[in-house]
Amino acid sequence: MYRDRIRLASLQDKIMSAEDAAALIQDGMTVGMSGFTRAGDAKAVPLALAKRAETDPLQITLITGASLGNDTDKILAERHVLARRLPFQSDATLRRKINDGEVMFIDQHLGETAELLRGGQIAPVDVAVIEACAITETGGIVPTTSVGNSATFAMQARKIIVEINLNMPAALEGLHDVVLPASRPHRQPIPLTEVEQRIGLTYIPVDPARIAAIVITQHDDSPSNAAAPDDETRRIAGHLIGLLENEVKAGRLPPSLLPLQAGIGTIANAVLHGLADSPFHDLTMYSEVLQDSTIALLDAGKLRFASASSMTLSAPVYEHVLNNIEHYKSRLVLRPQEISNHPEVLRRLGPITINTALECDIYGNVNSTHVGGTHMMNGIGGSGDFARNAHLSVFVTKSVAKGGKISSIVPMVPHVDNAEHDVDILVTEHGLADLRGLAPRERARAIIDNCVDPAYRGMLQDYFERACARGGQTPHLLEEAFAMHLRYRDTGTMLPAPVAMPTRAAAPVTTAEPLAA
Amino acid sequence: MYRDRIRLASLQDKIMSAEDAAALIQDGMTVGMSGFTRAGDAKAVPLALAKRAETDPLQITLITGASLGNDTDKILAERHVLARRLPFQSDATLRRKINDGEVMFIDQHLGETAELLRGGQIAPVDVAVIEACAITETGGIVPTTSVGNSATFAMQARKIIVEINLNMPAALEGLHDVVLPASRPHRQPIPLTEVEQRIGLTYIPVDPARIAAIVITQHDDSPSNAAAPDDETRRIAGHLIGLLENEVKAGRLPPSLLPLQAGIGTIANAVLHGLADSPFHDLTMYSEVLQDSTIALLDAGKLRFASASSMTLSAPVYEHVLNNIEHYKSRLVLRPQEISNHPEVLRRLGPITINTALECDIYGNVNSTHVGGTHMMNGIGGSGDFARNAHLSVFVTKSVAKGGKISSIVPMVPHVDNAEHDVDILVTEHGLADLRGLAPRERARAIIDNCVDPAYRGMLQDYFERACARGGQTPHLLEEAFAMHLRYRDTGTMLPAPVAMPTRAAAPVTTAEPLAA
Repeated sequence: MYRDRIRLASLQDKIMSAEDAAALIQDGMTVGMSGFTRAGDAKAVPLALAKRAETDPLQITLITGASLGNDTDKILAERHVLARRLPFQSDATLRRKINDGEVMFIDQHLGETAELLRGGQIAPVDVAVIEACAITETGGIVPTTSVGNSATFAMQARKIIVEINLNMPAALEGLHDVVLPASRPHRQPIPLTEVEQRIGLTYIPVDPARIAAIVITQHDDSPSNAAAPDDETRRIAGHLIGLLENEVKAGRLPPSLLPLQAGIGTIANAVLHGLADSPFHDLTMYSEVLQDSTIALLDAGKLRFASASSMTLSAPVYEHVLNNIEHYKSRLVLRPQEISNHPEVLRRLGPITINTALECDIYGNVNSTHVGGTHMMNGIGGSGDFARNAHLSVFVTKSVAKGGKISSIVPMVPHVDNAEHDVDILVTEHGLADLRGLAPRERARAIIDNCVDPAYRGMLQDYFERACARGGQTPHLLEEAFAMHLRYRDTGTMLPAPVAMPTRAAAPVTTAEPLAA
Repeated sequence: MYRDRIRLASLQDKIMSAEDAAALIQDGMTVGMSGFTRAGDAKAVPLALAKRAETDPLQITLITGASLGNDTDKILAERHVLARRLPFQSDATLRRKINDGEVMFIDQHLGETAELLRGGQIAPVDVAVIEACAITETGGIVPTTSVGNSATFAMQARKIIVEINLNMPAALEGLHDVVLPASRPHRQPIPLTEVEQRIGLTYIPVDPARIAAIVITQHDDSPSNAAAPDDETRRIAGHLIGLLENEVKAGRLPPSLLPLQAGIGTIANAVLHGLADSPFHDLTMYSEVLQDSTIALLDAGKLRFASASSMTLSAPVYEHVLNNIEHYKSRLVLRPQEISNHPEVLRRLGPITINTALECDIYGNVNSTHVGGTHMMNGIGGSGDFARNAHLSVFVTKSVAKGGKISSIVPMVPHVDNAEHDVDILVTEHGLADLRGLAPRERARAIIDNCVDPAYRGMLQDYFERACARGGQTPHLLEEAFAMHLRYRDTGTMLPAPVAMPTRAAAPVTTAEPLAA
């Protein structure tokens, strides 16, 4: 059975149903599951676990690479299976339970979870559930569309459940490059000096005796839900490309730039799409996730090579890539997220990083996670890993949200994920603020003048001027730092209530004309 | 003249007065000066420059390693010589001018300034002023008590002024290990895998043709101004040592721990002093600054080796070390601050980092820099470099300041330098909060229960409970998040005004006793 997929014959008798495999997971356990930005997630065992919880309640700590697809987080949360969840999620139901305080969510730099597990700083993984396209002759696990934290989970877990997904071509083998740093002390350098370099194995090496179950599945990844570029994201891309052209002209960047990173989601994806019309060529990516834009740039001959930890594509692009995987395998590599997001490698390569701000303040501090300063959206993801170690750290956002009722730029962000020290460039559809080498007061002027929506510019300018009159390196009026947030909460818009004025409809009352016809 | 100190004979005719050397610096220039935490700073040329500015006004951008001694920042600021200053300072006069908006201060991660200069992201250094104990046969500059950013400045500047300080023993040569990462792309790994390893030169290599002036000086470094340990810092040290003992017991740390880092200043220095009475031995340090505590631990046989970018000692310890430099040279190394603070090296070595929080919030976000959220104290320094890449990131603070009128733990910090993602452990004299693997609501309970001063515990508990009732991953009441800060501003204390009660003194008025004698 499935001899091409399970090449170590002695593992054949580990094939079982998802239900039987899920029985290996017990109440109170820490479970590490594959899956990063909806790609390569375990699909059958988590569902079976949720089903079982209907009659046999249990709670686990669930660690993944990043977000899962297939509504797995939703279904597990609805069945109350999740006591703790880390390091990232993006599901509406789970988000509600996190914000209600029902699920303890630990929001981590995506590059750090593996380090914390290795160092014993968080509870070790009891059971790993890893999607694979094959198991090698030596019991090595060949991942599918993501590597994420799977290698760390599989190498640490007492028991491993492998989901062999027949919908994933066996030819994915060779796409991955699996290597992890050793334990401290006496750790050696990570010898990765070029984006296209391979320094590890094409599979996750494990003792086959720890593979306790193999489940055969046939399900696709959930496709990407990034929206197509629009006028505003095209303008953001235009501003950024203008900056990069200037950097090349000034000799601060080579014509092929430096490796690109773009966060998951609509805006960063759109910005990368914009590079198709740029003068740059021979580009490379060193990112955590590859999106449709990566494939478009590869196909257009703009991009030479892309490295990441997962690929999250729309349905047609996904099909195109899987059907032509031999072609793409020489241009793509998927690595453990500890390597894709590692400070050592990032500071060495010096990527141009493009991440989305939920909101940003006039000094360039970025809130990446908390709506209204309190309610978790998804998590910091890799934004901190990349921004801190970038050659050029760019944050992008549309200048307003909710049809103009929210300004994405505020006097003070009520939650800071990426502090101003790590933010070089801020871009909205209105323009770009180049914050490099500027003091906070200069940063504020650049951001207000270039990035803020005109409807909010006067309000922020006024706040800034009155704050400056009180002095300080980073002037603020603490008593009204969150006035815009509170106004939105109380009135549904950050804009002030319009001053009462005679309107056209009221005009007849004030005329001298006789009211009677 | 000074042939043992200036070993390249052709440079002998570059000896000149500080005034003549300072004439090389012109209005509008960017000047890079040696000096890191008061150690190894250029001493004569900046003074001559300030003197000249009295009659010949000029303004420069001044970049250093970190803070300067000898009142240099004060004197330059008073003479209005500083238009821009980076990446750190700790002088009261300069601080006032920064907060007044007269001097533009760019507060940077101390490990990043060299990278920004190399990448051309901030204006290049025109003139470097570097204190040295000698110039080698090839024109190499041998630093004194700090390396800081001196190598970067000297390698980039069009003109170099060397201050040969005769008070610094020539035998300092061999203490330093100078190497810098190459430009991107194609940068290689930094081959540093052990604290005691030497991977570079004992001097800063420069083309001697760029050495435009040599000034002979004879001035000591300003001594450290760290206060001696007191009861509270001893209690902080005790809590931390208890944690480390548990980590060793649990097998999460080896008996010699991992390399230690401690920030500049009283509390971190006192915590290190506390290790003298700990059961640990064969310790190492990988820090940015060595303080008295380092020497005490070396002398006590507790510490095997210490690596940093500078040494900032009290006067007697300074004399002891310089008089026995041959002994200490085999146990100490000074590196460029880009290497001492480099994310690649730090994440590999995994230090236990101990940094001081100016204030911290109930979720563990740390304000390292801004008094009242607006006014700069010193700068972020290396706290971000170390905390982000630590094995164990510890922040320490006394629970109160200003005799109890300020709580160092507040509902929300009005400035975030180190976000909660990068804070593992918080310690005050009251206790230790181990935040690893905790969700924000759990972090708040741990901090309030263990670290907050009893006078403020009820206030913070009440805030937290009312915030939780509104929900969220990180519950807050935005309208009163800064109420404690505002109360301190308006009343001089974060404590509420006492409720009016009949006092003993007022009692007679309310009695029925006749008022007349």
